Amino acid sequence: MLRIALAPIRVIPGHPDRNTETMLRCIADAREQTANLVIFPEMAIPGYLLGDAWEQTSFLEECEACGKEIIAASNGLTVMFGNVAVDWTKTNNDGRVRKYNAFFTAQDGRLIAPETTPYPFVVKTLLPNYREFDDTRHFFSLQKLARELGVTTKDLISPVRFSMHDREYAVGCLLCEDGWSDDYGLSPVKILCEKGHPDFFVNISSSPYTLGKDDKRRRIFSRLAAESGAPLLYVNNVGIQNNGKTVYTFDGSNAAYDAHGVLRLSGEPYEEATQIFDLETLSERNPVAIPHEPEAAQIFRALSYGVRLFLETIGMKRVVVGASGGIDSAVAAALYALVLPPENLMLVNMPSVYNSETTKTLARRLAENLGCRYATIPIQQSVEHTIHQIETATIENFYDGTTDSLAVTSFMAENIQARDRSARVLAGLAAAFGGGFTCNANKAETAVGYSTLYGDQSGFFSALADLWKYQVYDLARYLNESVYKREVIPQETIDIVPSAELSDQQNVDKGQGDPLRYPYHDYLFRSFVERWQKTTPQDVLEWYAAGTLEKEIGCEPDLVAKIFPTPKDFIDDLERWWNQFSGLAVAKRIQAPPILAISRRAFGFDHRESQNGPYYTKKYKVLKAKLLGSPDKC
Amino acid sequence: MLRIALAPIRVIPGHPDRNTETMLRCIADAREQTANLVIFPEMAIPGYLLGDAWEQTSFLEECEACGKEIIAASNGLTVMFGNVAVDWTKTNNDGRVRKYNAFFTAQDGRLIAPETTPYPFVVKTLLPNYREFDDTRHFFSLQKLARELGVTTKDLISPVRFSMHDREYAVGCLLCEDGWSDDYGLSPVKILCEKGHPDFFVNISSSPYTLGKDDKRRRIFSRLAAESGAPLLYVNNVGIQNNGKTVYTFDGSNAAYDAHGVLRLSGEPYEEATQIFDLETLSERNPVAIPHEPEAAQIFRALSYGVRLFLETIGMKRVVVGASGGIDSAVAAALYALVLPPENLMLVNMPSVYNSETTKTLARRLAENLGCRYATIPIQQSVEHTIHQIETATIENFYDGTTDSLAVTSFMAENIQARDRSARVLAGLAAAFGGGFTCNANKAETAVGYSTLYGDQSGFFSALADLWKYQVYDLARYLNESVYKREVIPQETIDIVPSAELSDQQNVDKGQGDPLRYPYHDYLFRSFVERWQKTTPQDVLEWYAAGTLEKEIGCEPDLVAKIFPTPKDFIDDLERWWNQFSGLAVAKRIQAPPILAISRRAFGFDHRESQNGPYYTKKYKVLKAKLLGSPDKC
Repeated sequence: MLRIALAPIRVIPGHPDRNTETMLRCIADAREQTANLVIFPEMAIPGYLLGDAWEQTSFLEECEACGKEIIAASNGLTVMFGNVAVDWTKTNNDGRVRKYNAFFTAQDGRLIAPETTPYPFVVKTLLPNYREFDDTRHFFSLQKLARELGVTTKDLISPVRFSMHDREYAVGCLLCEDGWSDDYGLSPVKILCEKGHPDFFVNISSSPYTLGKDDKRRRIFSRLAAESGAPLLYVNNVGIQNNGKTVYTFDGSNAAYDAHGVLRLSGEPYEEATQIFDLETLSERNPVAIPHEPEAAQIFRALSYGVRLFLETIGMKRVVVGASGGIDSAVAAALYALVLPPENLMLVNMPSVYNSETTKTLARRLAENLGCRYATIPIQQSVEHTIHQIETATIENFYDGTTDSLAVTSFMAENIQARDRSARVLAGLAAAFGGGFTCNANKAETAVGYSTLYGDQSGFFSALADLWKYQVYDLARYLNESVYKREVIPQETIDIVPSAELSDQQNVDKGQGDPLRYPYHDYLFRSFVERWQKTTPQDVLEWYAAGTLEKEIGCEPDLVAKIFPTPKDFIDDLERWWNQFSGLAVAKRIQAPPILAISRRAFGFDHRESQNGPYYTKKYKVLKAKLLGSPDKC
Repeated sequence: MLRIALAPIRVIPGHPDRNTETMLRCIADAREQTANLVIFPEMAIPGYLLGDAWEQTSFLEECEACGKEIIAASNGLTVMFGNVAVDWTKTNNDGRVRKYNAFFTAQDGRLIAPETTPYPFVVKTLLPNYREFDDTRHFFSLQKLARELGVTTKDLISPVRFSMHDREYAVGCLLCEDGWSDDYGLSPVKILCEKGHPDFFVNISSSPYTLGKDDKRRRIFSRLAAESGAPLLYVNNVGIQNNGKTVYTFDGSNAAYDAHGVLRLSGEPYEEATQIFDLETLSERNPVAIPHEPEAAQIFRALSYGVRLFLETIGMKRVVVGASGGIDSAVAAALYALVLPPENLMLVNMPSVYNSETTKTLARRLAENLGCRYATIPIQQSVEHTIHQIETATIENFYDGTTDSLAVTSFMAENIQARDRSARVLAGLAAAFGGGFTCNANKAETAVGYSTLYGDQSGFFSALADLWKYQVYDLARYLNESVYKREVIPQETIDIVPSAELSDQQNVDKGQGDPLRYPYHDYLFRSFVERWQKTTPQDVLEWYAAGTLEKEIGCEPDLVAKIFPTPKDFIDDLERWWNQFSGLAVAKRIQAPPILAISRRAFGFDHRESQNGPYYTKKYKVLKAKLLGSPDKC
């Protein structure tokens, strides 16, 4: 019998000492429970998203030393784990020391080498280099190694063989992407099957959570197991890791598929608990039924986990939320209230003359419902003082000896209000409270920069910035109905028109609000960011002309004609937001707070962008001219 | 005779239509001057730093269509240019459409294929994937193509042959990194030499400026030409490109080396001018003497070019500089004054009670010297109002029905002042003035977050954030002595102690200022960021113990013992700043403005980082304990 412990530990990125402690504890526990094989995730020792800390020699030495501790602890059992492997005698293509993303197998204090590689560890074959993944920047792939050695990649792929209770097991060792080979023209799994049929496969991963990815993962791994006729075991870490601007949760979710591809064992998302089972009786276990969950439930789980761990990561214990009475800040507050004790959460309403009694009352009621702290700090006097100072300042013109003065428009005054709230009140208040203040921007606003830099676009963390507005509403309802099971977020906050309340033209009581028509713009903007081949105005206009736009972007049917009576209305709107999306919004995102990622493409390091301004192709201009009935001038 | 035109055009990233217009104009000019061969830079049509715009199908189609226009314009001559090449029938490893970074050669309206590749263009062999370079994320390399086709990379590398005046020329076509092959274990130049000796090499590049890189480039290219015994022509674009957080200038600097590696022709840095010469008489030209320039002159050229083009790129015409009387804001103002008409530059002094008459006078004198606009807007009243509002706000505790209030410490009041200046005054004033305000942070402050978020760490652009403090001083002197040739930056501004003037403890008249000892900390922090293998406290402490620290980090000899009387003083300081560098400073940099890069490692997309907190290795802890004379507890 091979008794296997799948250990989806919480990896603390950049802290090999703490991860090694966790692993040693897990190994001891597994030994107590008579497990013969303990499996840890990819990069269990260093963590995975470390930026360029991979270039610190002493950090690499430390990871190597920690790896040796784990190897030494493998007395009487077999331990599989991911770590960075360094070949100090060679270099990467950047001239820095050679690093591999590696899969180690240790038994009785010694490493077990795969049959045909030059190292006593398995080297990751397929290095992801899309979205947030930067593997190729730091690690040398097995494919490059093969080229260097003058052999084929296939030559270097082979099972790892170890003995337990006088039986030999051949294991197909995969590192994360090695199991997702569809686009690489090379399948490590198929090669391993050809090289001597493995008794089972192990995929160790450090795989960030993405909404919907677990379904795909299950399909792919089930197929791999079935096609190769061998069980497949999957171990992914839990925890949170970031690359600065974008913060990822890791959902663990151990899995064991039998040789027919049936899922027989599955860990709970985000749970660190080790699961122990006997390989030989895996297929006798009941198949795991995957519960169908609404999207909001999945989003809630990722967000509440992410918020809790991010606070822990940066050591923040107290949080201030600017509560406007609107939906975004209400959802943010309701999320933080679940992870902080009530005395460590403060809501602040900061009214100017444009804020309605309606929203002021809603903000207060929200705080009452959450049972947290609450304060009101008006900004009117300060805003007026600022406007007065700017308008009365004497500008001396030293080039001609004259003087000048400036005028503040109502649009400028809107931004002055927003900055007064965040950079003046919230930042000062949060410091005095001993914490930080949240950024409550959603993804639609973030996409087009419908926000003020150093105003509502500031804060220590943007928990909602990867949620489209419809997802914020869904989450609000889910929080009330399924989490709090009472009306914590006032229903009126869900029902009123979304509005910034920064001018007379944004009067919620008159139903006046944001210029965004979320049921359309959410989906339009999503196509700019999240489609695998990104959408531009050319695609949008072609779909509009063909009558397929709603279907292509996924919004409700016949919506476009309702919102835009004429092609000119449609095109004006499209160009307005495309100009924002590729223009000022990029500048704002560069200075935006870190974003908690849940979608298949989050702003930040995941969706990389340059401040290059909007572009319209010639095809776009031709089609536009045609739709507007004007002569084609392109 | 082959008459060659090297065209280091200014490439506008993300705007293929404009680049194509430029190229067509250049081709027409070259034809008029009877050139037979026109050479444009790498990625001349799309630009190079585009973020993930490479994932927009319509953008790729547009680049392809623009490429066809250039090919069609090659009547009667040969045109070489860089563009993205798309194989719509294949995919990259990310599943997206196949893209190559490609070198096209067109003659008489048709493409000339290299001898042995499957495409009518040369595919870049070596894809850089370090610093700001993301080639592997978007482009399929020749090495991967070779593997896919089951041949060797060498099989696919061959010269491009074209005829002119009944003579055939074999050209070794290189794309940028293909000429910098030392760390790749494969030299395209050597392979081309083996494959039939090229008559000359052409390296088309899109190569961002880095201080000192031009020296290395000349050494490498001179050696390549001499070793291969063939002339080498180098064409790089000018202009400015960015990947969001980090902004790069491109310095063009055409070069032609003869078959002995002697530089015979060299374009001026940042100049767009086409250079025309006859290949056959290249070696008869006088060797180019490279003038020795002080570092400050090079920095000045890159910065003034970068500032001018960045303003143009984002369409900003008017600029406000918060002028404190200190060195950083003075240098920033003096730079902007050179690229803006005086009426479009405004300096603003924003005193609180802590600002000395000394610095207030210096700020005003700077504006007088520059002959720009000037205003004074005091912040004291607003700061007091903010503190009063925070301290008198009633906090209702809805969890127990009590109320509370908060206190503002003097440290908090310092940050309140900084934010009041930037987010309240400067942002509002800049909007009213119709422009933006600058961030004047230097690299030392940025490294350890000695700045206030939404305060002095804000602005539309950080022109100085890749300069260590000593470089800021050098630049100040250079501006006075060599650019303005008069004392524009008051000498006193250069002489006084650097100070934030945010409290009684930072009194410049008493010589009190920043906690940073720049002659040491500049160099310490530089080793954290810019060393090829990055330094950590372990390295620093080992060097300290060995007495080699000053030599390793490059500061003046014997400085460390002067500043730190005991090992404890030294270690306290080291840990203080390492904690900041890896902690709060990362959080601040995530929200910092775009940085103009000049060094070998700028903050932002060049030096990637995660918010993972500081780490100290076991070796560090052991050595620390030893140095402190305490028992080793690790």
